[in-house]
Amino acid sequence: MIAGGVRVLNVGLPLIVDGVDPDAVVQLDWRPPAFGDADAARLMASLDTERTAEANDRAVTAMHAVRPQLTSIRPAREVVPGLAEGRLLLHAGPPIEVERMCGPMLGALMGAAVFEGWAADGDQARALLESGEIAVAPCHHHQAVGPMAGVVAPSMPVVVVEDGGRQAFASLNEGLGKVLRFGAYDDEVITRLRWMREVLGPVLDAALRRSGPIDITSLVAQALMMGDEGHNRNVAATSLFARRLGPAIAVEESGTEVLGFLAGNDHFMLNVSMAAAKLATDAAVGIADSTVVTAMSRNGVEFGLRVAGTGEQWFTAPVGPADGLFFPGYSIEDANPDLGDSAITETLGVGGFAMAASPAITQFVGGTPDDALATTRSMRRITVRPHPAYSIPSLNFTGTPSGIDVLKVLDTGVLPVINTGIAHRLAGIGQIGAGIVTAPPEVFQQAVRGLADRRSTV
Amino acid sequence: MIAGGVRVLNVGLPLIVDGVDPDAVVQLDWRPPAFGDADAARLMASLDTERTAEANDRAVTAMHAVRPQLTSIRPAREVVPGLAEGRLLLHAGPPIEVERMCGPMLGALMGAAVFEGWAADGDQARALLESGEIAVAPCHHHQAVGPMAGVVAPSMPVVVVEDGGRQAFASLNEGLGKVLRFGAYDDEVITRLRWMREVLGPVLDAALRRSGPIDITSLVAQALMMGDEGHNRNVAATSLFARRLGPAIAVEESGTEVLGFLAGNDHFMLNVSMAAAKLATDAAVGIADSTVVTAMSRNGVEFGLRVAGTGEQWFTAPVGPADGLFFPGYSIEDANPDLGDSAITETLGVGGFAMAASPAITQFVGGTPDDALATTRSMRRITVRPHPAYSIPSLNFTGTPSGIDVLKVLDTGVLPVINTGIAHRLAGIGQIGAGIVTAPPEVFQQAVRGLADRRSTV
Repeated sequence: MIAGGVRVLNVGLPLIVDGVDPDAVVQLDWRPPAFGDADAARLMASLDTERTAEANDRAVTAMHAVRPQLTSIRPAREVVPGLAEGRLLLHAGPPIEVERMCGPMLGALMGAAVFEGWAADGDQARALLESGEIAVAPCHHHQAVGPMAGVVAPSMPVVVVEDGGRQAFASLNEGLGKVLRFGAYDDEVITRLRWMREVLGPVLDAALRRSGPIDITSLVAQALMMGDEGHNRNVAATSLFARRLGPAIAVEESGTEVLGFLAGNDHFMLNVSMAAAKLATDAAVGIADSTVVTAMSRNGVEFGLRVAGTGEQWFTAPVGPADGLFFPGYSIEDANPDLGDSAITETLGVGGFAMAASPAITQFVGGTPDDALATTRSMRRITVRPHPAYSIPSLNFTGTPSGIDVLKVLDTGVLPVINTGIAHRLAGIGQIGAGIVTAPPEVFQQAVRGLADRRSTV
Repeated sequence: MIAGGVRVLNVGLPLIVDGVDPDAVVQLDWRPPAFGDADAARLMASLDTERTAEANDRAVTAMHAVRPQLTSIRPAREVVPGLAEGRLLLHAGPPIEVERMCGPMLGALMGAAVFEGWAADGDQARALLESGEIAVAPCHHHQAVGPMAGVVAPSMPVVVVEDGGRQAFASLNEGLGKVLRFGAYDDEVITRLRWMREVLGPVLDAALRRSGPIDITSLVAQALMMGDEGHNRNVAATSLFARRLGPAIAVEESGTEVLGFLAGNDHFMLNVSMAAAKLATDAAVGIADSTVVTAMSRNGVEFGLRVAGTGEQWFTAPVGPADGLFFPGYSIEDANPDLGDSAITETLGVGGFAMAASPAITQFVGGTPDDALATTRSMRRITVRPHPAYSIPSLNFTGTPSGIDVLKVLDTGVLPVINTGIAHRLAGIGQIGAGIVTAPPEVFQQAVRGLADRRSTV
């Protein structure tokens, strides 16, 4: 028997002190490091050195120094390495065999094969994909990124962003509804893709050449002052872009159609800012000893992570569906596991990391404006430093948390937050909601092993 | 001598307890009601009845029910009552004789007279204005509003907003730099006004007729989600407007020029939202017994207030210059006393009242994002209820404080806050800064007398 009352300090699950007077309990917010993986925790501690800190500083400095300019819109085969010849389609996420692909990704690849004229219909396309006569590879292996299924085919127009001689690419955003990136490939989808190839791409390209390149860092920074978070909310960036390029578009034949398309697609700028983020994060790829993340990406089956110090190696783990706000008639039962290269925006420090800039987005992905502030603040715990160009007014103009450090994720147990659209698990139905996901812990546990291996062999 | 230490409860100026240990002082934030005017305080208390509350409820309901549609852009003489014939120019603020006008307003009127072809030059225009051969009247007397000098001349194009058969008007925004509304009237200014009359107005009018009316309440609501506060920051509203009307503008001859003008003028939508606010607040004019403010306006010499229950009567008091952030090379010494009809936006509940929606604006008008939140919260103390259409994300989507109650202003001593541009006191130099002003207490003291007179005579 204990005399004088009980006072409890609890370090484990709150469950264990259920029934004890809450005023007598101090609950410590503590989690075992490295998500309970003792080996990973030991490696994490051993890598936490001055050498790592210095390498991470260089990695983030390199990422922040990139100022991507949108210079042109060109057919992918002209500019994306490896697409000039043969039958290759690019897709989102880490590498995956055709047999293991999810519905929306397979549907998008089938549609792209039909669009390219390599197959007469979906069945034939599927056979060619399964036999390997049409090859597939991740966008990330070709300096490119794409949202959701992320499919890039050779004749599709892609945005070209450049800085200091380097380039990155992304497909053009098709808008909402029945679209290829959610796995739809009926006539409506293919017809729109043809219009994008024959009208949208060439008109925007001509307008950009007339107006000169657009500084995407500056445009995204302005959009963060206007309630975008740079991933799931793009209405400010798209409006600024359409208004700025409007006069140069208007003089082109079919310019009116293009202005109409931009007026109706609030997400047009997403793909452009994804390409810009890819160009920035690529600047840190291969910086020895750095534990800074250079890519997060999902193929609908697995989540893939790349880290500066391990170059082009992928660390992967199974991925689940996002929970969030579903459109009427849908639930998490209908949701495909998370999909797309768009988490490149979080990798740079916007999107989920810039939630505080976008209280309005909570109406779309769930939560409250206070949650949005808390999310951005918590991402500070796992990042190297604020992005100097991306300031958040409601946090007194502090920069967004930027440069995810694998060691900090393992140390704090705080996982990177990603704003995402939710695709139906069946090809072609499209977006059924939006929400917030976190990266799976396993990829960080694997990454620290990969980093430690690399360190010991140098 | 006092033993046992001193503890002070101070109700007056903090000055009086200077030197006393701050921990021993409780400072009460109390001000004498009605700004120390005992007679006004007595009238305020006597008017604070159920009858007033019921009238104020009707007044605010009427204001909030208005949904202004931007339907066309027409020459003022065609649509603004009283401008069809003769030589009449409209100006901002309450009525004022030409002799007492400030530099920027006189300059703008002289420029407008030259623009209309009524005078060969500024000197001749001034003589005609002083002799009364060119008449002047407030915009507010003709269902119109204009920013700064606010001059509307018969051949100028004006925006037409409508709802339920009522109309309101405003001039088109000229952009920044050397412009008529700051009193400049050299060739550059007159040339731009001619282009606005011959190209901008007709092209926008044709585009509006093609695209159909634009719901301004909805557009302003969306802009408040995007960091505009609806008075001094208009980049979101302007971008949304340009993107939406872009396709219809592009098909017009000279459409490209117009898109270029819109791309370069972040404030284009200010005048449109002013006209919409005027249409809304006008719905409460003349509602007997209501103590809700229906107009706040400045002519550069005096501040004018109108209240629902006193109809078209003006309550005026001298106005000073705004203090805020000055452009390099300028200071408050150079500032003209506050000017313009644009405080109609605060009268409806945006602008200074919606500061919390626009943390970014503190970089333009001074203060911090926390100040912006505090300003919006303090305006709740003097308003009837939140505007149902204008929600502020960072305040958990609560509506902006709307419907300024003269009695609440006198009771709390909290004055309405107005975001304003600052004009140079000499005609033609233009904007030299931006900042925050409050309405002068005297107009509320006068208003309560006017309201009490009206009540006793009914």
